Amino acid sequence: MLPDSRWHRTKTRHPTYINLTYIEKKRFTRNQRNQNQYSLREITMDEFMAAAIAEAEQGLQEGGIPIGSVLVRHGQIIGRGHNQRVQRGSPILHAEIDCLANAGRIGRYDDTVLYSTLMPCYLCAGAVVQFGIKKVIAGESQTFAGAREFMEAHGVEVIDLNLERCQQLMRDFIAQYPQLWFEDIGKLTSKEA
Amino acid sequence: MLPDSRWHRTKTRHPTYINLTYIEKKRFTRNQRNQNQYSLREITMDEFMAAAIAEAEQGLQEGGIPIGSVLVRHGQIIGRGHNQRVQRGSPILHAEIDCLANAGRIGRYDDTVLYSTLMPCYLCAGAVVQFGIKKVIAGESQTFAGAREFMEAHGVEVIDLNLERCQQLMRDFIAQYPQLWFEDIGKLTSKEA
Repeated sequence: MLPDSRWHRTKTRHPTYINLTYIEKKRFTRNQRNQNQYSLREITMDEFMAAAIAEAEQGLQEGGIPIGSVLVRHGQIIGRGHNQRVQRGSPILHAEIDCLANAGRIGRYDDTVLYSTLMPCYLCAGAVVQFGIKKVIAGESQTFAGAREFMEAHGVEVIDLNLERCQQLMRDFIAQYPQLWFEDIGKLTSKEA
Repeated sequence: MLPDSRWHRTKTRHPTYINLTYIEKKRFTRNQRNQNQYSLREITMDEFMAAAIAEAEQGLQEGGIPIGSVLVRHGQIIGRGHNQRVQRGSPILHAEIDCLANAGRIGRYDDTVLYSTLMPCYLCAGAVVQFGIKKVIAGESQTFAGAREFMEAHGVEVIDLNLERCQQLMRDFIAQYPQLWFEDIGKLTSKEA
């Protein structure tokens, strides 16, 4: 990537541009545009996942299960949330559900993207499918596989970023509080309940 | 069914019993017991669905979407709820989710039965599958087909009582407030949103 990746946006000519032929200039411009768009998309994706991770970390500080989520529409965060099982004694406020609750009655969801630090479970994936969210970006699916296939079978685009920070949050938490985690995903056995 | 279906419970001899042989008496007693148990189960089922319908009616009185739900464990209602989209401005508090929230952190769900006046949508069915609820009893699925097949594919027993009262509540509501209903199931079009 060129040092100034915002070259195309700022409409100044990149030094390399000067000595190119007309065809090369067209190709250069197109490549720059693509590169910048990709770069912007990368930055945006990281920014939103960073916000979801911040939610997860806030949950952890509150003594809760460290899973965070944000809902994005047209490049803006319109909802944030984190798992509230411990904090609000709520079995249904998984991170994604808390996020959707906080976003409020937004009407349509087909132009939104849901970010979550963990691959959504069936409860949250059910919300994605029912509300018609078209894209889900998950921080990881190593500590919990979630309901990726179910979402994809319903036409949802699912991206797994496989981030170490997200895995670490869950690995540490599950090791320390396994029962709380199994309670959260409805997998307590009769002895534990 | 005999006129006095509570004959076995009250331990009085049914008149028919008197003239039977020993074997016939045994069979008669067993049949009576089965018949009474079936009858009792029917009554119990109606009682819980009646409670779900009462929730739906309460929701309607509050100006909300008339769907109600109860969660039952060992013949006792341990959670009640109704759709809260209008009342609490919540997109995620469908009747079943509100009911599960009100039941609180009960740990395990594999010994519970979820009643709903309407066949659960993917959000609520997702909760059923994730939490491991084994049985769902719906008031109807005529006005909204819901996610019956999804639940059954995950081993959930689903019973549809096909009740006129439940259908009537939804038919009247959808006719009067179609947009509110389509918003609730994530089916608003771009023009309506």
